[in-house]
Amino acid sequence: MLKKVHHINFLVSDLEQASSRYRSIFGVEPGKIEFLPERGVKVARFRLDNVWIILVQPTDPDGMPARHLASEGEGFFLMSFQVDDIERAAALVKKQGCGVLDETPRHGLDDWKVVDIDPRDTFGARFQLVESSASDTGAQEL
Amino acid sequence: MLKKVHHINFLVSDLEQASSRYRSIFGVEPGKIEFLPERGVKVARFRLDNVWIILVQPTDPDGMPARHLASEGEGFFLMSFQVDDIERAAALVKKQGCGVLDETPRHGLDDWKVVDIDPRDTFGARFQLVESSASDTGAQEL
Repeated sequence: MLKKVHHINFLVSDLEQASSRYRSIFGVEPGKIEFLPERGVKVARFRLDNVWIILVQPTDPDGMPARHLASEGEGFFLMSFQVDDIERAAALVKKQGCGVLDETPRHGLDDWKVVDIDPRDTFGARFQLVESSASDTGAQEL
Repeated sequence: MLKKVHHINFLVSDLEQASSRYRSIFGVEPGKIEFLPERGVKVARFRLDNVWIILVQPTDPDGMPARHLASEGEGFFLMSFQVDDIERAAALVKKQGCGVLDETPRHGLDDWKVVDIDPRDTFGARFQLVESSASDTGAQEL
């Protein structure tokens, strides 16, 4: 069911500062800042091999990312597994008694369709399922 | 400097229970249990595409993983970036004013040589550098 690790998100308080630090420490290039208002965040991302690393700064203080940042602090936020068919994968997960936080897929960056898994059912790890197009190689963004 | 995401570790309290749950929810197969006494952990891992996902249960209550589990709870532990030359990569990171937790590389699973980066310098994200052999494909373990 899981094809690969598609992206990994890290929460930060200051996106510009974090991007700058990642550039200097790791020699990577977080791209332009993108806004995802329906999630209440702005992000910058870079690609390592075939995985997206995404820095996420909350913009909506009432959104879930902002609440997570307030309670847990900066650091790892979630890891997203690529699947072929998001509805089918979410149904399979639920059939195993595992909760999901999105009853219908929500839209992420690009054409991504995502469903978050209830971290109480995965030993505190915050996982997500994502369906994205075959052309999701990052070439167009970088 | 960073070639790819090499592995991602998640802390769990009960490795057998977590492995069983990952099998049922995600259809993955965490392999045999491996012990890393010098780190004070036992682990089970599976490979997704070219990334290791590793479930980690502390075995030494005084070790860093056990202390992290006690203070932070289960969930994401660290993400490791593959590099060609661990000494050179660690030196480059330090040159940028970023701390490391291992002054000399320590041994991980297989032939991995690892250096942990101080999470206070990476906005709370716990990163690691790892050098491993070219044959580190997981084929022998699965």
